[in-house]
Amino acid sequence: MNHSQAPTRKQVAIVGAGFAGLNAAKQLSHRKDIDVVVIDRENHHLFQPLLYQVAMAALSPADIAVPIRSLLNAANLRVIKATAQTIDVARRCVITDVGEFAYDYALVACGAQHSYFGREDWEPLAPGLKSLPQATEIRRRVLEAFEAAERENDAEKRRRYLTFVVVGGGPTGVELAGAIGEMSRFTLAKDFRSIDPRQTRVMLIEAGARILPTFDSSLAARAMRDLESLGVQVWTGARVTNISAEGVTIGTEQVGSATVLWAAGVRAAAIGRSLGVGIDHAGRVIVNEELNIPGHPEVFVAGDMSSCARDGKPLPGVALVAMQQGQYVAKTIQNDLQGRPRQPFRYVDLGQMATIGRSRAIAEFGKLRLSGWFAWWFWLLVHIYRLSGFRNRLSVLIQWAWSYFTFGRGARLIVDKEWQAYPIESQNR
Amino acid sequence: MNHSQAPTRKQVAIVGAGFAGLNAAKQLSHRKDIDVVVIDRENHHLFQPLLYQVAMAALSPADIAVPIRSLLNAANLRVIKATAQTIDVARRCVITDVGEFAYDYALVACGAQHSYFGREDWEPLAPGLKSLPQATEIRRRVLEAFEAAERENDAEKRRRYLTFVVVGGGPTGVELAGAIGEMSRFTLAKDFRSIDPRQTRVMLIEAGARILPTFDSSLAARAMRDLESLGVQVWTGARVTNISAEGVTIGTEQVGSATVLWAAGVRAAAIGRSLGVGIDHAGRVIVNEELNIPGHPEVFVAGDMSSCARDGKPLPGVALVAMQQGQYVAKTIQNDLQGRPRQPFRYVDLGQMATIGRSRAIAEFGKLRLSGWFAWWFWLLVHIYRLSGFRNRLSVLIQWAWSYFTFGRGARLIVDKEWQAYPIESQNR
Repeated sequence: MNHSQAPTRKQVAIVGAGFAGLNAAKQLSHRKDIDVVVIDRENHHLFQPLLYQVAMAALSPADIAVPIRSLLNAANLRVIKATAQTIDVARRCVITDVGEFAYDYALVACGAQHSYFGREDWEPLAPGLKSLPQATEIRRRVLEAFEAAERENDAEKRRRYLTFVVVGGGPTGVELAGAIGEMSRFTLAKDFRSIDPRQTRVMLIEAGARILPTFDSSLAARAMRDLESLGVQVWTGARVTNISAEGVTIGTEQVGSATVLWAAGVRAAAIGRSLGVGIDHAGRVIVNEELNIPGHPEVFVAGDMSSCARDGKPLPGVALVAMQQGQYVAKTIQNDLQGRPRQPFRYVDLGQMATIGRSRAIAEFGKLRLSGWFAWWFWLLVHIYRLSGFRNRLSVLIQWAWSYFTFGRGARLIVDKEWQAYPIESQNR
Repeated sequence: MNHSQAPTRKQVAIVGAGFAGLNAAKQLSHRKDIDVVVIDRENHHLFQPLLYQVAMAALSPADIAVPIRSLLNAANLRVIKATAQTIDVARRCVITDVGEFAYDYALVACGAQHSYFGREDWEPLAPGLKSLPQATEIRRRVLEAFEAAERENDAEKRRRYLTFVVVGGGPTGVELAGAIGEMSRFTLAKDFRSIDPRQTRVMLIEAGARILPTFDSSLAARAMRDLESLGVQVWTGARVTNISAEGVTIGTEQVGSATVLWAAGVRAAAIGRSLGVGIDHAGRVIVNEELNIPGHPEVFVAGDMSSCARDGKPLPGVALVAMQQGQYVAKTIQNDLQGRPRQPFRYVDLGQMATIGRSRAIAEFGKLRLSGWFAWWFWLLVHIYRLSGFRNRLSVLIQWAWSYFTFGRGARLIVDKEWQAYPIESQNR
């Protein structure tokens, strides 16, 4: 068999084992004429759509993280735990902290992190939610705030501890605010002696005219009512102008808060700039219909890192886009090797969903719109189905069933920063 | 018959035709040996427990106001529309702007108005709700704020117009905040083009640890959840430190609001000071067990104006207390005339209630606690029953039925201040 392999084997480098990288690698795993190297700073693939549930103590980190090796164990796949630094498109190699990896094809898909619109100094005050350490840090801050309030005698300080501000009214902001509302109104309601967690103020701050702008306005209105029923007040048309240890400022308004969470904007991983091509305002690499950068049909950029237009608007930074792009890239590489013409990438919109606490969600599939209890069950089934790895599915299912019937949260642990299993800034960017 | 009347007819002066004065006068209306004069600055008795419904455009002023003459048309009763200025206890006469009225017995019951705790300059910025003109003014401001928001293009200003702050978490504050929440989420939801009234922020600010402190804490918690479901956020432990045209300040917190309503404290009518006896911190006249001021068994003070202790705490300023006190005073006068010994006043606590929007209420009768839909129907029946005058009952019943089934509000009129039927400061104090 050796004679047919040696000269024609193509090297594919995949940088980032998120939804795009993972799906591309899986599609290529049966090809005997291709060697794939998957480079990621972490050893685990993260199921980001459920990350907020880790932050909100409903799931444990291990429930939504799976070792990349266990997902990609085909003979032609190599997994390298390394930090990619630049892509040298001229020399066709990925430069990492553990050496260089030459490629015939490269897929760069390192995701995104939160953007503070030039106020990166706000990050320690208002962490975003993109990685497991960030999720556990948010969990620690939220739970710690209730503990601090319980110890505090001064009414104003206590009110500050019991005020949670979530900045950004997209799906992540909605899910975080809804979960804090639910936690305070139900889970923690009876746990304290000197405070009543039900007195907690939760504000969801959105600069635009309404929350969930990518959803139909009737669904967004429903989500807002659902949030209100969990004690969350939505402030629309409200742009945060300052964040300090005391709280947030919105123009002339000031709200005291010890816990501010950021879900207001994303910025693509910095490695995109090393490609030396055009990037958009969010740092995303502008790619053509085949997800290539100009002049380099062998370099693909996919997922949250890429800006791929559909009807003049970039595709949203969601898992479904990344998954389809990963599969498309794998298919395109195979077409090339078999001498078939390339097809442009076409996103098949399977809809979007957001949950608001226990038993409530909104979902949109083309003209079909669901909300309430039924949408939540649908959301649950889809996410259970999509979760990679049998053990995770079962574990999450059990956790959720327990939470659903008891209003409890199984992972209500405060883990000190110093003792966390994961260092901050662990994602491959 | 004349021979038995002339020398023994006693003169009773009742100052104020609120719940206390009205009930005393009614009890004395069958006595041939007593002449009663009822002095009030207004020509109408006001059913204050429903005043907030006028402010919130659910009822019209005429629905809750009845001409005093039509309620007191017995032969021995005279109704005088006049402003009482002082009570001359030495000369035993009431001095008014239309002359003096001598008395053998006097009942002073002129009610209370809102107290701004030394910041009376806040009154124009944050009106209270004690009189019909105040109610129509609040209605005008609330409805006008939505109109102004509709015209406004600047996001920050629009947000200010769509922010309603109610100060004070007693029953009135809860009822006002709940009604604004309901109005914005249901009644007005579809009426505007450039704004979405459902984005309205409603805050209920309470300095104490929780709202409705006179209620059981489980009922207060239920009321808070009901408020939240109407989009009202409750801020507890929050003391307002400033109010300006821009909004309210709570310590270091600032919230922009064009409409601030005051329901935070009461101060008894000023005429109480003319009695020259002790008053408490809220300006209420301190009376003994027989509702008399020291040394004057012929002078009674009742209702919101009086401070009558039970178990060391003054009785609450509610209609039920005033009604029972009015009846007690009438009975005591009759006992005196018949040479029977006086009995001390004993308040029979029939419980307390508060409504939160349509279909929700809380009610407490001793150990019995009701909430939700059933409590609301109970509240409705009690208030319909208590309303004086058949026409009012029917009118209110029809209005409520219409509102209940349509979510509409029949009295959504903006009446300009200049054109109001009632002058501001119309209560008899």
